[in-house]
Amino acid sequence: MPRYALRIEYHGAPFAGWQAQADQPSVQGAIEDALDRLEPGPHRIAAAGRTDAGVHALAQVAHCDMGRDWDPFRLSEALNYHLKPRPVAILEAARVPDDWHARFSAQERRYLFRLLTRRAPATHDAGLVWQVPRELDLAAMRAGAAHLVGHHDFTTFRSTMCQSASPVKTLDAITIDRVEGLSGPELRFHLRARSFLHNQVRSIVGTLERVGSGAWAPDDVKSALEARDRAACGPVCPPQGLYLAGVGYPDDPFAG
Amino acid sequence: MPRYALRIEYHGAPFAGWQAQADQPSVQGAIEDALDRLEPGPHRIAAAGRTDAGVHALAQVAHCDMGRDWDPFRLSEALNYHLKPRPVAILEAARVPDDWHARFSAQERRYLFRLLTRRAPATHDAGLVWQVPRELDLAAMRAGAAHLVGHHDFTTFRSTMCQSASPVKTLDAITIDRVEGLSGPELRFHLRARSFLHNQVRSIVGTLERVGSGAWAPDDVKSALEARDRAACGPVCPPQGLYLAGVGYPDDPFAG
Repeated sequence: MPRYALRIEYHGAPFAGWQAQADQPSVQGAIEDALDRLEPGPHRIAAAGRTDAGVHALAQVAHCDMGRDWDPFRLSEALNYHLKPRPVAILEAARVPDDWHARFSAQERRYLFRLLTRRAPATHDAGLVWQVPRELDLAAMRAGAAHLVGHHDFTTFRSTMCQSASPVKTLDAITIDRVEGLSGPELRFHLRARSFLHNQVRSIVGTLERVGSGAWAPDDVKSALEARDRAACGPVCPPQGLYLAGVGYPDDPFAG
Repeated sequence: MPRYALRIEYHGAPFAGWQAQADQPSVQGAIEDALDRLEPGPHRIAAAGRTDAGVHALAQVAHCDMGRDWDPFRLSEALNYHLKPRPVAILEAARVPDDWHARFSAQERRYLFRLLTRRAPATHDAGLVWQVPRELDLAAMRAGAAHLVGHHDFTTFRSTMCQSASPVKTLDAITIDRVEGLSGPELRFHLRARSFLHNQVRSIVGTLERVGSGAWAPDDVKSALEARDRAACGPVCPPQGLYLAGVGYPDDPFAG
């Protein structure tokens, strides 16, 4: 059973999330259905990050086991053919060792969050950004974010439904850039860690928005973190600005 | 009857174009309907550029006459409220003199064309770019484009349905940039002229794609232009990569 890694882009809007669920459209289900069209199944795939409903991916990574040898390029082409018209695209496929695992071999996840600061409703970017109708104080947000980098108990910033064994994680980096997009000024949050807690990115961005709008001082983020109390978190922001942007492996399967 | 200029963004996909038509959704019709909700109508509005079906705008400009004095900010807010959920947004409104005309006062139109060069189908950018599944030779496209700048008979590059009195126009500038977007490498064509012929931008971009893919030599663009023959044009490219990006006026009504 040759194993393949898949680098996957998707628009989260039509899906109840990555994970296959009965009677609900999922990204995993769409790709497994496409695999079943290629050869007898059922196929089951595992992904590096189980994104929530409405969350997008620029470069999710999953792996699948196939009954026969596939040329990786032909496998991606055949999957894209069967995935149409759903907004899921296989960007690349690569042969990997039999013990390689998209989730357990991953050593880094990268997330992007897009926040559009303008008053008029977004048109081209509707569903692709979180829109806030005012300018935000970027320097204050960066100062607030700095308190979160490092090894911490992130209980404040995780969903009460989070199934992770421990709330202690290391956030390797969080940077915030201001870019001038076609729809106007946009803040782009880039977060990097070995792994994330459920709702961690959305809890962090929602809290930092409070800092940017002046409702919180940057040091209030430190107090919230140290409280280790979900109630101390700012509002969790909506999913449509969030993108799983990349997954890191000791040996990048797509480097060849 | 106080007159207002409106700067308008829209997603072209759900519309049969800018211009109001019986039994077809149009951007003009959507805005006129919203105006009729604000005060007794019917309102008729005029725009700087009548975009075709599927063509987007980042900054279309139109004007409307109102029965009473409106604070420009409140006018834009009220219109956006009534335009929802259609993907049309009034970015700004401004009071203008009674003889100011969105179309006839305009002295420059700017268009953007987005061409995504990648093989896997676009997901987030579906409907917002023209997708070509291969890399294109940017230097060759720029050399081809240079033949089109200036005062020329553009018969080759206009639709046979074009109603302009003359095919002679001055193309002030055409630049092509390569940007790394979230969906991958993108070519952005920026065109600027006092006015354009019908299908002129799509005819030019479709022809330059032939140059970028190596099917045409850059000098073939010169021959096509000099032929003054619609049959000498390359394929007209699809509308979904095209954006009316801006309109220039002697006194910018939105500068205040």
